[in-house]
Amino acid sequence: MSILIKNIRGIIQAGDDVPQFRAGAEMSVLSVIENGWILTEDEKIAGYGRMVQMPSGVTADEVIDASGRFVLPSFCDSHTHIVYAGSRELEYMDKIRGLSYEEIARRGGGILNSAELLRETSEDELYRQSMERINEIIGFGTGAVEIKSGYGLDTESELKMLRVIRRISESSPIEVKPTFLGAHAIPAEYRNNREGYIDLIINEMIPRVASEDLADYIDVFCDKGFFTVDETEQILMAGIKYGLRPKLHANELGFSGGIQTGVKYNALSVDHLEFTGDDEIEALLGSDTMPTLLPGAAFFLGMTDPPVRKMINAGLPVALASDYNPGSSPQGNMKLIMSFGCIKLRMLPAEVINAVTINSAYAMGISDTHGSITRGKVANLIITKEIPSYEFLPYAYGSNLVERVVLKGEVS
Amino acid sequence: MSILIKNIRGIIQAGDDVPQFRAGAEMSVLSVIENGWILTEDEKIAGYGRMVQMPSGVTADEVIDASGRFVLPSFCDSHTHIVYAGSRELEYMDKIRGLSYEEIARRGGGILNSAELLRETSEDELYRQSMERINEIIGFGTGAVEIKSGYGLDTESELKMLRVIRRISESSPIEVKPTFLGAHAIPAEYRNNREGYIDLIINEMIPRVASEDLADYIDVFCDKGFFTVDETEQILMAGIKYGLRPKLHANELGFSGGIQTGVKYNALSVDHLEFTGDDEIEALLGSDTMPTLLPGAAFFLGMTDPPVRKMINAGLPVALASDYNPGSSPQGNMKLIMSFGCIKLRMLPAEVINAVTINSAYAMGISDTHGSITRGKVANLIITKEIPSYEFLPYAYGSNLVERVVLKGEVS
Repeated sequence: MSILIKNIRGIIQAGDDVPQFRAGAEMSVLSVIENGWILTEDEKIAGYGRMVQMPSGVTADEVIDASGRFVLPSFCDSHTHIVYAGSRELEYMDKIRGLSYEEIARRGGGILNSAELLRETSEDELYRQSMERINEIIGFGTGAVEIKSGYGLDTESELKMLRVIRRISESSPIEVKPTFLGAHAIPAEYRNNREGYIDLIINEMIPRVASEDLADYIDVFCDKGFFTVDETEQILMAGIKYGLRPKLHANELGFSGGIQTGVKYNALSVDHLEFTGDDEIEALLGSDTMPTLLPGAAFFLGMTDPPVRKMINAGLPVALASDYNPGSSPQGNMKLIMSFGCIKLRMLPAEVINAVTINSAYAMGISDTHGSITRGKVANLIITKEIPSYEFLPYAYGSNLVERVVLKGEVS
Repeated sequence: MSILIKNIRGIIQAGDDVPQFRAGAEMSVLSVIENGWILTEDEKIAGYGRMVQMPSGVTADEVIDASGRFVLPSFCDSHTHIVYAGSRELEYMDKIRGLSYEEIARRGGGILNSAELLRETSEDELYRQSMERINEIIGFGTGAVEIKSGYGLDTESELKMLRVIRRISESSPIEVKPTFLGAHAIPAEYRNNREGYIDLIINEMIPRVASEDLADYIDVFCDKGFFTVDETEQILMAGIKYGLRPKLHANELGFSGGIQTGVKYNALSVDHLEFTGDDEIEALLGSDTMPTLLPGAAFFLGMTDPPVRKMINAGLPVALASDYNPGSSPQGNMKLIMSFGCIKLRMLPAEVINAVTINSAYAMGISDTHGSITRGKVANLIITKEIPSYEFLPYAYGSNLVERVVLKGEVS
């Protein structure tokens, strides 16, 4: 199968020299080719360039005329909890009414609500519900997604989640990266025995996850009221021993030390970061860890946004992800996340496009194969509707402007 | 043409006794029929009820099975500027970079930017661009829309806008209410002659608009830096003389006195209301004026939201509208506006549904024919996708959950 896309008004993030990620002032750099063409062959990008330089005789099984349209690499969503059972809109009404997190938890809400429901849900049903969401985000332009466990909170249920994630990976054209997040919360049955649960994670869950090769990364909710730095370090060290690279929930609820811990253990990313000060920025500079922001959650919970301009001005890279989950960000539309980047975080359109393509590809460990339109990379593409400029994408914040998507070289 | 919709999981806002609007504690009341049917005949709603009580032998030209789906009245969007030329995403980048309103205006931005472009655009081209937006909002579930002039700012250009609005009304199934907003801003050529422009509005524009019967309502941007209370009163009185009922832009930028002025002149609605205090609430109580909030604009501009809970708790009704315009809210997705109502304004799902159906119908003067599923009202309906509850609509804030829409008794 080959596809030739012609007469593209602008190809965004195209080039054989796009770096593994862009940081600081480079985040406002985008490689743009005006009036161009792209050729895919099988699953890969085979060529691209300006129409005036298109080699004569180029043809393909399918030819798409993209006049007036832009093409960009599919979004990489590097932080989701998209595998879950049911939804939590009724609990959200309690939040609107002003109930505190603790009151909602006492009514059976929060992560433990999702855990209870997930344990009762069969693997097939969990797969079915999750695939509806996967197909929805594919339609919104996402071509690669990281998915975490963490609503099981017992060994069998965590494994069940990870098997569903594997099944999604095998049955869908979307690229999937699985993360083990047994340390998402302390389950009800261990409320008075934290050490017991951490012991279970370290000595039972991690070895099982590794022996079935069910995860690439290990995550811990290292934050106020969840896991301490000391507990996080124990869990990460156990994961690293089994080849799982850290990716952390950090500094959403306070200056938790999570960012520094992530850097110390060479995390691929530290995510949330609402509480980021000078020390945290200092720790991140020069590290291999991608600061990842989840503005959908901050929006849904009415929280203060992280100091993104300060971070970028200090020279840091930034990735954006959806945090798609039933409690704090029940949606996975990455174009809306781009709008949050511009409108709430005061990032420029070029910065948010870097943040949802090459930088978020880095944050999920796939920037050598995804995140830009580069010869040899996977042919994951978004073809927009007719729009006046690429800046129009985050600006028209309520519109769906994705007309077609190509995943692994096939129109989806 | 008749349509029978069967097996509806829940019919929202259905009843022959839905009031003209709902206020205060009543705003959390919704008339819901579980497991129901709806029959339309020609352009009207002919019947509805519970499946178990559906009269035998009911049939129609088209039968729709809505198992697992909800049906609600189409959204009424009571405040838009959807007729405009071009878009302003590049100016928005200046806002992100921190340029002030005045600096942007000096670079040719703001309302005057749109005015310049609109004057240069032909009526046909303006109609074409506007119809793209109209068709988009129809797909999002809007069945009635108020549209303002106000980017012309000279007599011929204001009339051109109003003729385009009339043409939309005649060529689209959407219900349209036109508002004359000559007093949107002082145009560049009158910068040093405010009185001259107000004189033009009063003595030339309003009589011409009235003689061609091009508007139902008259609007003034009564706010800090735009039109004073005194100027507003002059303009409203002239409009009222010609049968145009007031609908005001008020208190977006300061305690402008706009709310009190609206109430004094029996405005159908006062809109924006970011600056609402006890005096403004007092003025509104018991009046015939609908307080209308535009959270999309507050979101896009990063402004403080109005004190909505205080207003509802004081017994006021509230309507929500999109404010679709190229400068401060470039989108018209009313489902997203519902989400803003819940997430940013802390309104309950039932309150936001009242705010975007019957209350916003009132705010555009059509609540006797629109805004609820009532026998004899216009058959404007939204059929959702399969969802677990109506509360899921604002909760899943990035998803498009509208599967089909019926406008004037036809599937659109």
